[in-house]
Amino acid sequence: MFLGIDVGATWTRIAVADRDGSIVKKVRIPTPREGNELSLVEAIIEVLGKEFRSYMDRIEAVGIGSIGPLDLSTGSIVNPPNLPIKRIELGKPLLEHLRRPVYVANDCVAAVWGEYLYGLGKGLENVVYVTLSTGIGGGIIVDGNLLLGKKGNAHEIGHIVVDSLRRLRCGCGGYGHWEAYCGGANIPRFATYLIERWSLGTEEKRSKVYQQYLEGSIRTETIFDEAKRGDPLARKIVEEINRVNVAGFESVINLYDPELIVVGGSIALNNPELVLEPIKGIEYGRGALNEIPRIEPTMFGDDVVLVGAIAIASNPPKNLVKKLRYLEQL
Amino acid sequence: MFLGIDVGATWTRIAVADRDGSIVKKVRIPTPREGNELSLVEAIIEVLGKEFRSYMDRIEAVGIGSIGPLDLSTGSIVNPPNLPIKRIELGKPLLEHLRRPVYVANDCVAAVWGEYLYGLGKGLENVVYVTLSTGIGGGIIVDGNLLLGKKGNAHEIGHIVVDSLRRLRCGCGGYGHWEAYCGGANIPRFATYLIERWSLGTEEKRSKVYQQYLEGSIRTETIFDEAKRGDPLARKIVEEINRVNVAGFESVINLYDPELIVVGGSIALNNPELVLEPIKGIEYGRGALNEIPRIEPTMFGDDVVLVGAIAIASNPPKNLVKKLRYLEQL
Repeated sequence: MFLGIDVGATWTRIAVADRDGSIVKKVRIPTPREGNELSLVEAIIEVLGKEFRSYMDRIEAVGIGSIGPLDLSTGSIVNPPNLPIKRIELGKPLLEHLRRPVYVANDCVAAVWGEYLYGLGKGLENVVYVTLSTGIGGGIIVDGNLLLGKKGNAHEIGHIVVDSLRRLRCGCGGYGHWEAYCGGANIPRFATYLIERWSLGTEEKRSKVYQQYLEGSIRTETIFDEAKRGDPLARKIVEEINRVNVAGFESVINLYDPELIVVGGSIALNNPELVLEPIKGIEYGRGALNEIPRIEPTMFGDDVVLVGAIAIASNPPKNLVKKLRYLEQL
Repeated sequence: MFLGIDVGATWTRIAVADRDGSIVKKVRIPTPREGNELSLVEAIIEVLGKEFRSYMDRIEAVGIGSIGPLDLSTGSIVNPPNLPIKRIELGKPLLEHLRRPVYVANDCVAAVWGEYLYGLGKGLENVVYVTLSTGIGGGIIVDGNLLLGKKGNAHEIGHIVVDSLRRLRCGCGGYGHWEAYCGGANIPRFATYLIERWSLGTEEKRSKVYQQYLEGSIRTETIFDEAKRGDPLARKIVEEINRVNVAGFESVINLYDPELIVVGGSIALNNPELVLEPIKGIEYGRGALNEIPRIEPTMFGDDVVLVGAIAIASNPPKNLVKKLRYLEQL
């Protein structure tokens, strides 16, 4: 059996599964926001003792799909933008405790590996996973090879410069990145930018989004909820978000020539008609030069990274293993 | 020995080289602009008979780096935008004639393979080649794997959407692509677009570029030549070109996390200070999220694709060979 761990900014989810990826038991705990570099591993070990004791003897390996940025050589999270702890150790201390292989990977890298092994990507050789969530991330398999790159970051598709005029700044500090416009954390700023440049009519000013704008507190959820109800201002904002999302997906198609793009993340999964449909409607010729691949939501829903972590545990990609130097201790 | 062939829109260059990539003899012929799908192969065979007869017995394999788009399964060029012939057969008829392996690859794919084997990329695992020329193209190696993708087009970096406002249309029909602004063939249109939106002063209107604009015949060369001489309008246009080039290179850094980017193509190589310097000046944080790689001009100059074709012949990438179905005839 295999253990999969999905480390998110809010929740850490843990599951045991069979070799075929089917989950036998899963538990989630809040990701510690206080403490030191070992607090997360200590919390995980506690849960393993309490909830997974009966499986532990049979665990062959552990896979972790984690928020980044990661230092793969030690298997740790370094300066995560969404957590107050500066360095979080994962791979090394967990391996020392469990005396079993512990493979750490970026969350989207894990997700695409899960889709490739257990999901819609089974049997394909060119698969991209894109998450539209708080941030925008990707995991990429080309010709059957998982892309990692020099430091393991060859998949930062959220940081494609989609706007060479660089109207907005990204959470990473860069300008004009896809995520700066369409990442859930940045959508309120993009909406504010748009509202301040549009001349709005009376009806649009009645929008709940406009009220939140006046109060300086636009919420991403409100934009999508109001757009669903037909609110004209919210719909106009969503149109602009979609315009940038389509540009991002067209670049992904041109850059990786995939057979399949699997889409995950709350913004995509919660808004199939508003957000997913325009992406699925991408046509050859307008911005996409390569053949349009299948574009589908993940079949694993919220579990996509967890399933990916299990896939990483059961079939660790060779080029990933090479980068996880702490494994040498085994 | 190995035969390398660089098929360009204007010239086809042929060379024999040793296993270490050193060229023993090279010849160039005009790429036929008339005739049928076999005219190019016939011209190549004629040159081989005339100029390379004494080497032919010792040739182990042939590598071709060609303009695209390519149909790798038959090794042919299909609907090349810069040639009047609709389909040009290469791999199959040449293999039938020479009875030796003939490997066909995209020109930039060949170039990056040449840099990896014989050039600045020797000993590295993550190398990107970018050409700034009539068009913008790339070849990419991540974790030692050459990226090809479903149809062999996982490297269309010239078609990253850098402008989600989609101000300009690309030669491929898409909108907002990097190449639509900075490809040599499109620079006159980008310059026209800018001139029509700027309010120009008297001095700027004295520019040779402005005179060409009035005549509807801006030339890319004139822009760079005049900018070198300090012409203020030409310099302003080059600044805008550089702004988009920098966005493109930042995306490449974020997407592939390379150790090295090698730059080739006439626009880059002829304008080291005007075009290359701003790219080499890319800094972490402004748009690039990953560590900034070395960015260097190719040491092979105009021969970069030819050297790449030789590299493809001497060490054919496994995933490329799998796609060249016509090789089964051997």
